[in-house]
Amino acid sequence: MTNPTPWRLAARAEAMNPSAIREILKVTERPGILNFAGGLPSPETFPVAAMRAACAAVLAEGSATARPALQYATSEGLPELRAWVAAEMGKQGARVAPEQVLITSGSQQGLDLVAKVLIDEGAPVLVETPTYLGALQAFTPMQPRVESVASDDAGVQPEALRAQLAAGTVPPRFMYLLPNFQNPTGRTMPEARREAVLAVCREHGLPIIEDNPYGELWFDAPPPAPLLARWPEGVIYLGSFSKILAPGLRLGYVIAPPELYPKLLQAKQAADLHTPGFNQRVVVEVLKNDFLERHVPTIRSLYKSQRDAMMDALARHMAGLDVTWTQPAGGMFVWLRLPEGMDAQALLPRAVDAGMAFVPGAPFYAHQSDRRTLRLSFVTSTVAQIDQGIATLARVVRQG
Amino acid sequence: MTNPTPWRLAARAEAMNPSAIREILKVTERPGILNFAGGLPSPETFPVAAMRAACAAVLAEGSATARPALQYATSEGLPELRAWVAAEMGKQGARVAPEQVLITSGSQQGLDLVAKVLIDEGAPVLVETPTYLGALQAFTPMQPRVESVASDDAGVQPEALRAQLAAGTVPPRFMYLLPNFQNPTGRTMPEARREAVLAVCREHGLPIIEDNPYGELWFDAPPPAPLLARWPEGVIYLGSFSKILAPGLRLGYVIAPPELYPKLLQAKQAADLHTPGFNQRVVVEVLKNDFLERHVPTIRSLYKSQRDAMMDALARHMAGLDVTWTQPAGGMFVWLRLPEGMDAQALLPRAVDAGMAFVPGAPFYAHQSDRRTLRLSFVTSTVAQIDQGIATLARVVRQG
Repeated sequence: MTNPTPWRLAARAEAMNPSAIREILKVTERPGILNFAGGLPSPETFPVAAMRAACAAVLAEGSATARPALQYATSEGLPELRAWVAAEMGKQGARVAPEQVLITSGSQQGLDLVAKVLIDEGAPVLVETPTYLGALQAFTPMQPRVESVASDDAGVQPEALRAQLAAGTVPPRFMYLLPNFQNPTGRTMPEARREAVLAVCREHGLPIIEDNPYGELWFDAPPPAPLLARWPEGVIYLGSFSKILAPGLRLGYVIAPPELYPKLLQAKQAADLHTPGFNQRVVVEVLKNDFLERHVPTIRSLYKSQRDAMMDALARHMAGLDVTWTQPAGGMFVWLRLPEGMDAQALLPRAVDAGMAFVPGAPFYAHQSDRRTLRLSFVTSTVAQIDQGIATLARVVRQG
Repeated sequence: MTNPTPWRLAARAEAMNPSAIREILKVTERPGILNFAGGLPSPETFPVAAMRAACAAVLAEGSATARPALQYATSEGLPELRAWVAAEMGKQGARVAPEQVLITSGSQQGLDLVAKVLIDEGAPVLVETPTYLGALQAFTPMQPRVESVASDDAGVQPEALRAQLAAGTVPPRFMYLLPNFQNPTGRTMPEARREAVLAVCREHGLPIIEDNPYGELWFDAPPPAPLLARWPEGVIYLGSFSKILAPGLRLGYVIAPPELYPKLLQAKQAADLHTPGFNQRVVVEVLKNDFLERHVPTIRSLYKSQRDAMMDALARHMAGLDVTWTQPAGGMFVWLRLPEGMDAQALLPRAVDAGMAFVPGAPFYAHQSDRRTLRLSFVTSTVAQIDQGIATLARVVRQG
C-alpha cells in the first residue's frame, strides 16, 4: 500500500526552470580562463576593514547593540537603515518617508515580494527587450504572461509601448524597468526617454517596478533622476547595497507607495520574518560618517578604468568586423552584437577553448532572442586581461 | 486621463492578513509589564563573544575568507555548513547527504519555499490542532485549503487522520508537523505516536513537512528520533540556528528528498539568490571545535530552570481553579486552558492592566479556535518574574 513517491508538485513549480545562466557559467568555470561571463562585482571593492570594524563595534563587550543585533527584529527593517535610505533618495529628488522603506534580503527578494503581491496567474507584465534574467526568474513562480516591449539603446520605446497597451485586452499589472546601466545591456534611459515613457504609463495607469542596483556606479555624471521621483504613486523602487558595499550581506530595499506597503510587508513577514538584524546593524555602522562618499568614488574610478580598457580593446580588436557594442556610462556590463549569421551560444564553447568566456544574450530575452548578442562584464578583470580577452574573442569571431 | 491608483493586487495578496499575533503584541508592549507573550529566545543565551571572534576571524586582514564571505555565493549554501548539517542529522539517526541540504534565510523561508513548490490554489494541506501560526502565514499566499487534524497532548491523532484521509476526495499535498516542544503548545510526539502517525502517512502516500526549531532544547532527555529518520523519501525537514545560536542571523535549512531538491533550489534562487554568505561563514567559524556541545547545554539548563519555575508557580497559584496546562519537556512554551466559559482574548486587556501579558490561543487554530487557550513563554523572564506573573494571571482568572 506504500506510495513510494508521495510528492506532487504545484503547477508553478513545473513552470520553474534551472537558470540558463547558471548552466552556462558551469562551462566557463575553467581554471585560467579570462572570464567576462560573471555578474559579480569586483571583490577588490569590498570594504573589508570597515566591515571588520563595524562587526567589532556592533558586537563589542557590553555594547547596547550586541544582543539586539542577534535577536529577532521587525519585518520592516532597522529604523536607522530605513531612515538612511529615505534620506539618500531625497538627494536624488525622490521624497520618500522612512515608513515607505522595506528592508529586503537583497533586491532579488524585492522582486519576489512584488511578484507575490501583484501577479495573478496569466496576468500580463511588461519587460524591456532584453531584460534582467533574475527578474524573469522571480516573476515565473507567480505565472504571469510576460510581454516584451520593443527597446533601443535608450530603453523601452514609448510609441511601441503605447501601441502595445492600446492593442492589449487585459491591462498589464506593471512594467519592469532597469533604467541605469542596465543588466545585461549597460544602457541608460536618458532624461527625455524617461519622461516620454512615463507619460505613456501615466496615461494608461500602468505602474512601474524600477530596479536600480547600479545607479551609483556612474563614471562621468550621475544618471537622470529616478522614475520614482517623477511618479511617486505609480512606482515601486528596488535598491541594493550589493554593488556599493558587498553582495554577501544580502541587503536591499523596496520603496512602495503607502497603499501597497502593508501587503508587501505581510509578504515579507511570511517569506523570512525579517532580513538579518545583524547585517542591518553592521551596515548602519559602516554607513556612519558618510563612509560611502569616500568609498563609492573608488569603485567608480576602478570600474571606469576597466570600462575604458574594454572600449579601447573592442575598438582595436574588432576593427573591420561587423560587430557592435554598447558604450556604458556606468555599471558593470557591455552588450555586444556579433556579425550577421553568428550565434553567441554556438560561439561560446569555441571562445572557452580559446581561453575566454562571455554570457550569450539569448536567456535575457523573454521572447524572440537576438542570438547574435552576448554580455561582457568588465569589472572582475585587469586592464591587461581585458585586452587579451577581447583579442581572443575577436580571433574566434574572425574564424567565423 | 491619469489613473491615480494604477495598482491592482493579486488575489493571493487579498488573502494575506496582518499577523494577529503582531497586532496582539502591540497591546503587550507596555513598559514594566511581565511579558510572557513573546516568541523570542532569551538574549542571555546569545554567544556574543564567540560571534565577535568568528567575525574577526572571517574578516581578518589578508584572510582567505574575507572577500569570498562578502561576494555572491551559491544558492545551495556554503559546503562546510551543508556538511555540518548532514553530520548533525546523522547523530539523530537520519542518513542525510550534504547534497540534500539547502541553507535558507531562517526556517520561515523553508516554509515559503515548500509552499511555492507544493501548494496549488485550493489544494488541501493538513496541520495540527493548534499549529504554528508562522506556517499558516507562509502557506496562505499560495492559497491552500488548510485542514486541521484532531490532536491531543501527543500530537496528531492517527485514527482521526486516517478517517479524514479516507473521507477526503482530494489527497492533501502534505501534513505539516512540529513534533518537538511544539509552538504553541509545548507538546512532544512520543515514540509510539510518531510510528502510528507515520504508518497512516505511508499507507496513504501523505508526505510530511517536519519542522524542528526547538528539538535541541530538551531538558531531561532528547526527544525521539525525527520523522525524517523513519521515512526519508516522504519527509521534508526544516531546521534552524535561531534557537541554538541566534535568530538575528536568519540561518535555517531544508533537507529534501533528492527528487524535490532541484525545485526547492530554483525557488530559493528566485526568492533571494542565496542566504548571506557572510552569516554562513561566521556560523561555520562559531561551530568549530564542537562549540555547540558546550553552548547548547547552557541554554537547556537556563530554560529548564525557567520551565520548573513556571510549573511550580502554576501549581501553586492556579490551585482550585479549573485551569489546565501542558508540561513541556523542552522548548520555550506552556499552553494553558482557562476555566469553562472564559475567553483568553477577552481576558488579555485585564491581564495587561494587572501587569502581565500572554498570547491568546485562537490565532494558532486554522479552524474552530478553542478560545479558552493561551500561550506562555517562560524563557525571557526570571524565576521571580515568572512567579509574580503567574500569580497575577491567577488573580485575573479568579476575578472571572
